[in-house]
Parts: sequence; C-alpha cells; structure tokens
Amino acid sequence: VTGLRASFDRQLDSLRGQLVIMASSATSAVAWASRCLVSSELSVAGQVLDVASELTEARRSVESRTFELLATQQPVASDLRLAWTSIQVVGDLERMGVLAAHIAKIMIRRHPTPVIPAPLTDIVRAMAEVAERMAWLLTRVLEVRDPALSAEIVRADDEMDALERQLYQIVLTDWSYGIAAAVDAAQLGRYYERYADHIVSAAHHVAFLITGKVGGGGPQA
Amino acid sequence: VTGLRASFDRQLDSLRGQLVIMASSATSAVAWASRCLVSSELSVAGQVLDVASELTEARRSVESRTFELLATQQPVASDLRLAWTSIQVVGDLERMGVLAAHIAKIMIRRHPTPVIPAPLTDIVRAMAEVAERMAWLLTRVLEVRDPALSAEIVRADDEMDALERQLYQIVLTDWSYGIAAAVDAAQLGRYYERYADHIVSAAHHVAFLITGKVGGGGPQA
Repeated sequence: VTGLRASFDRQLDSLRGQLVIMASSATSAVAWASRCLVSSELSVAGQVLDVASELTEARRSVESRTFELLATQQPVASDLRLAWTSIQVVGDLERMGVLAAHIAKIMIRRHPTPVIPAPLTDIVRAMAEVAERMAWLLTRVLEVRDPALSAEIVRADDEMDALERQLYQIVLTDWSYGIAAAVDAAQLGRYYERYADHIVSAAHHVAFLITGKVGGGGPQA
Repeated sequence: VTGLRASFDRQLDSLRGQLVIMASSATSAVAWASRCLVSSELSVAGQVLDVASELTEARRSVESRTFELLATQQPVASDLRLAWTSIQVVGDLERMGVLAAHIAKIMIRRHPTPVIPAPLTDIVRAMAEVAERMAWLLTRVLEVRDPALSAEIVRADDEMDALERQLYQIVLTDWSYGIAAAVDAAQLGRYYERYADHIVSAAHHVAFLITGKVGGGGPQA
C-alpha cells in the first residue's frame, strides 16, 4: 500500500461519511413532508424544500470531489467502481429529496385545503411510516455496513407497493372528493413509491460498496 | 499523442456512435407510444416495451465499456469528464425509453377502452409531436455537434410545459370521463413532460461533450 493509495482510501471513507449525512437529510425530508400533509404547516413544507436544495448541493459537491480524487490519484479499476457507485448513491439520495419536495409542493398548492381526504388517512400514514423506516434502514446500511439490512429494505418496498395499489383502489372506487383531489392522491402515492424505489436502488449500490471492499462481485451495470 | 491516447479517443468516438443509435431508438419509442394511444394497437405498445428493454441493455453495455476503458487506459482528467458525461447521457436515454414504456402501459392497461377522451385529443397529439421533435433534435445534436440546436430544444421544452398545464386545466375543469381517466390523463401529461426534461438534460451534457473537446467549461456538476 503506497502513500497515495492510503490517502485515496481515506478520502473515499470521507465520501462515505458524506453519504451518511445525506441519507439522514433525505430521511428528515420525507418525515417532514409527511408531517406537513397532516398538519398543513407551510413552514414545515418550506423546510422540506430547503433540505431538497441542500441534497442537490451535496450531490454536486460529492461528484466534484470524486472527480478530483480520480483525476489526481491514478486510481485502479476497483477505485473507479467504488467512485462510480458512490456517485450512483448520491444520485438516489438527491432524487429522494426531490420526491419529498414534490410531496410538500402538493400540500403547498392546496393550502389551506387539506390534501388527505378521510378515506386515505390511514394509507398515507402507513406509506409515510414505511418510507421513513426504509430511509432509516438505508442510513444504517451506510453506517454499519450490514448487508442483511438490505433484505429488510426489499421487504419494506413490497409493503410500499401494496400500499400504493390500495391507494389507487380507493381513489378509483367510491371517490367523492372530486377530480383534483384524486389526481393529487394518485401523484402522492407515486411519489412515496418512487422514494422507496430510490432507497432500494441506493441499498443495492451500497451492498456493492461493502462487498467491493472485500473483493466481492460488481454491481449489475 | 501517444498510441494509447489515440486508441482511447477512437473508443470514445465509438461510444458517441452508440449514443446516436440510442437516441434514435428513444425517438422511435415515444413515436410508437403516441401512435398506440390513438390506434389502440397492442402490437405497437409491445414494440415500445421491447425498445425500452433494449435501451436498458444498451445503457449497461455503455457503462461497462466506459469502465473498462477508464480502467485500462490511465485516463487524464478530461477523459474522466467525457466518460462521466457519456454515462449521464445514456442514463437520460434509458429513462426516455422507460417513460415511453409507461405511456404504452397506460394504453395496455385500459385496452380496449381508448385512453384519450375527445377533449384531450389535440393536446396529446401536440405533446407527442413536441416530444418526437425534441428527441429528433437530440439525435441531431449528437450527430452534427451543433450547440445551437440545444437552444431549440429548450424552447420546445417550454412548449411542452405549457401543454402539460393546459392538459391539467382540462382535466380539472369540465371533466366528465370519470376518475380513472382523469388520473391516467394526468400521468400521461407527466410522462411526456419528464420525457422532455430528460432530453434537455441530455442536450446539456452533450453540449459539454462538444465544448469539452475544444477545452470549454465543464458541466454544472
């Protein structure tokens, strides 16, 4: 191990620290977005938009640093794959922030009319709970590098898909809240579901970051 | 210029050729998706799904080849940026295929009921036309490397955004086709609009591929 090699590894570790911070922000973003749907607090919706902007900024910063690292350190093939994987993960984390912001914007657009009609209260609360739990699991995966947590994430994603189907079912049968509320509810379901998809994608990439470290196989790319 | 350097440049050019082919496929995908909305031909919808799968395969293949290239050729910093940019563009092209497939799937799900109620016929036809024109412009940008075409793409994207707003307006006022058709129409509008967004994003990256070649500024990343 050369001095350059060790320095490169240290910098990759610092990138991983940045990923943990971003995952934690993406968790807060969806938690606040869900809260503002229920409470109609515009200030909370505003916080979601702020966090989403911060995540975009963080994504750009990680990309730039990764490039500088690659350009100055003569990386080997496995370094390139690790760097590439980190960049995939920050892309997913940024998208999670954007989707939380989409949820908050639905609430802002309809304010002060509440977004969630009574028949959807339980489902949206359940989707919010699953999204937050999955985001928390992703943060843990980044922190403790335990690939078993990925299986939990996949199971939770199945729950989310089932909840989205239930939401559509309610909107498409016995709906008496008008077209605008139906369209918003369908979008809302879609945003939570895509938020969860990005967590699955990020966890998949992180699994490679972990196994890649000990010489495991590459990602499906 | 060393032999390695020249070989690397040749391989990057071959990657660009691959991008042109993908852009052309992504254009066909949206053209066929729009056609199947009007004609209700399931076989055409099936073609869209096939092209979307091919685009995913092509994206993976470009990513792998780019990695091999980087790992075996000791690239300099500008090579890394070019490779990174190519990978961004193939990601956008893949997403364009996925969005065309989403459009086709709406038609498949409702078949044999037509997807487009009379009041939306003109708007959806216009969105289809703008999407196809933008995709064609993107293919041209990749072929002839004329950054002026990017300005046309941005203008067309503004048209698309305006059309999406009109579509929502119609769905949310004077709608007599039921909730399911309203939700589908809103999704449809969203898919065309996101398809257009990925073209703007790809064109932005391609502008860097062009200017990057002659020492221009980097992308906003």
